Amino acid sequence: MRLKIAVLAGDGIGPEVTQQATNILRAVAELGGHDFTFVEGLIGGVAITKTGSPLPTTTLDAALDSDAVLLGAVGDNQFNALPPDKRPEAGLLQIRQALGGFANLRPSIAYAALATSSPLRPEVTKDVDILFVRELLGGLYFGAPRWWDRDSNEAINTMRYTRDEIVRVARVAFELASKRRKKVTSVDKANVLEVSQLWRATVTEVAKDYPVVTLEHQLVDSMAMHIMNIPRNFDVVLTENLFGDILSDEAGVITGSLGMLPSATIGGAVNLYEPVHGSAPDIAGTGKANPLGAILTAAMVLRHSANLEQDARAVEQAVHTVLNAGYRTADIARGQDPGQTPVTTQEMGKLVHQAL
Amino acid sequence: MRLKIAVLAGDGIGPEVTQQATNILRAVAELGGHDFTFVEGLIGGVAITKTGSPLPTTTLDAALDSDAVLLGAVGDNQFNALPPDKRPEAGLLQIRQALGGFANLRPSIAYAALATSSPLRPEVTKDVDILFVRELLGGLYFGAPRWWDRDSNEAINTMRYTRDEIVRVARVAFELASKRRKKVTSVDKANVLEVSQLWRATVTEVAKDYPVVTLEHQLVDSMAMHIMNIPRNFDVVLTENLFGDILSDEAGVITGSLGMLPSATIGGAVNLYEPVHGSAPDIAGTGKANPLGAILTAAMVLRHSANLEQDARAVEQAVHTVLNAGYRTADIARGQDPGQTPVTTQEMGKLVHQAL
Ligand SMILES: CC(C)[C@H](C(=O)O)[C@@H](O)C(=O)O
Ligand SMILES: CC(C)[C@H](C(=O)O)[C@@H](O)C(=O)O
Repeated sequence: MRLKIAVLAGDGIGPEVTQQATNILRAVAELGGHDFTFVEGLIGGVAITKTGSPLPTTTLDAALDSDAVLLGAVGDNQFNALPPDKRPEAGLLQIRQALGGFANLRPSIAYAALATSSPLRPEVTKDVDILFVRELLGGLYFGAPRWWDRDSNEAINTMRYTRDEIVRVARVAFELASKRRKKVTSVDKANVLEVSQLWRATVTEVAKDYPVVTLEHQLVDSMAMHIMNIPRNFDVVLTENLFGDILSDEAGVITGSLGMLPSATIGGAVNLYEPVHGSAPDIAGTGKANPLGAILTAAMVLRHSANLEQDARAVEQAVHTVLNAGYRTADIARGQDPGQTPVTTQEMGKLVHQAL
Repeated sequence: MRLKIAVLAGDGIGPEVTQQATNILRAVAELGGHDFTFVEGLIGGVAITKTGSPLPTTTLDAALDSDAVLLGAVGDNQFNALPPDKRPEAGLLQIRQALGGFANLRPSIAYAALATSSPLRPEVTKDVDILFVRELLGGLYFGAPRWWDRDSNEAINTMRYTRDEIVRVARVAFELASKRRKKVTSVDKANVLEVSQLWRATVTEVAKDYPVVTLEHQLVDSMAMHIMNIPRNFDVVLTENLFGDILSDEAGVITGSLGMLPSATIGGAVNLYEPVHGSAPDIAGTGKANPLGAILTAAMVLRHSANLEQDARAVEQAVHTVLNAGYRTADIARGQDPGQTPVTTQEMGKLVHQAL
């Protein structure tokens, strides 16, 4: 198996967690005799500082020329005053658009070992296993017109979807659900928004092609509540871009830390892999960052770009093993369990490597 | 004290919970020698069925001619196939717009007696007291253009804000915060949306007039997580319309049930009062509905339209008393505490009345 991976570590804790993820990928390659090569590129705030652009052409070319893009995190407070199209985040939105992946998969899983890290009661989170399928190229993120007019003191963003954009991401959700617990929960605000009415009608239509999968619709406000009250009720959760952004972060509390959550974006020219967490500039370089989100993202690379399902599971299993043994970075050390050992970013990475 | 209250009970459980709320208002009037009169009007699905319109002119006139509008709930599945402007919810959005209230106040409080009803750990919810100030007349709910074109299979909604719309709601948030714990958390998605950048810049500017109040900005996705992880960190939470819809429902899990949450919309010609919960058609008429959201909404009528702060507190205290005595409607009976007594909608209303 040969795989060329573009590694865009980005800002803040991006580089340190990505380092641990690539270590794991190297280990898997070595164990399995695979040929993984890594090409580094700049993105985000660090790219602005060094090149003036949040997504330099060289980075984009390297990404398009690779089999998979592994991204760390993007975002830096020093650019907060800039308009959206000049910020580090613009680099992320541009690369998402350029790679063309429209289905962002975000698993939200309750780890028994982390039950005390979640603000939710253990009986609520027990056995929760949700897969968010977030549409990633439409809605308010990319819709035009969009402007802030400083003369009229008015601003506009546009939430726009076409039927085709909804069909393609809905198909991904139904395909995945048919291999899981066979339920899709589609989220919208169809009692108010025309876009949501198109969303609901389209998803309902796509569902007809998947008779084994049950479809339910939830309004986004109710869903924000249900997902905390009865997370076990959900299997695959299908959302438009912004609703998925909000709900998948919220669902991070099920696992106990955003630092645990991986994501994969599929369906385009090149798949894009990024942990859900941000650049967390406040803890960058302190060894406090949790690399497990990035490592679990590496497992998704193995699953979705290398077709190495066994290896993906082995990495996920290694994460379980390390957590069960009590090792904790700061973000997941909230519980009062004795038998916990605090570890740094690097130590956590090494432990997973050993457990492999 | 004279007060003319337009009562728009609406759909589903609306009439039964509103009945309990007006009973309490009558009791307060009697105890305090006030003159409260009640005028009933149709709204929502029931209005569509009887008049063809979700907000008949007679209702609107009665509302505009009153000192306060007390609304039950709006929404009926039989109209799900209709476009947004023909649905029961259109009546709600139209009356919100016509009354002109732009600041929707939604308190989210942890009741010690209900600690077992929340999916959150008791140590997380303990002493939580958040006040959402949700902008109610702008953003995606009202922005134009908005359409679903069935030929091109495309749909659009517009998120639009002007500086003035943000200033006026921000002032309400800062005023309220200066009488509370002196902190405003403003929610946006300023790393992606131009509208959010205007929002953030404007709120930052308004904050200068309130030096005693601390302002912090949170991205909506992070906020969806923080509000579950560390709800005690928040005092007044200021949001645009849709973000407030989502986050205030989510915060319902702090209290343990959406059925407990009241709201008041102020700043317009006539204040509008509505519990946060919906019409819950599945339990309408079964006696399962929790009237406390509506009763606490009645307390907000006393506070914000009748300037009867003492009476408002007395009603809130009566709710505490009844909960402490172990009385529970179905939605808040989740805990395993012995000493709980299940009660119906009507019984709960009577108990609060007695406790007054
Ligand atoms: C950084 C930001 C632009 C991004 C998003 O909103 O998509 C992030 O929050 C995420 O969820 O990946
Ligand atoms: C019924 C609906 C239109 C309404 C809203 O979204 O504002 C409701 O969810 C609320 O929060 O009051």
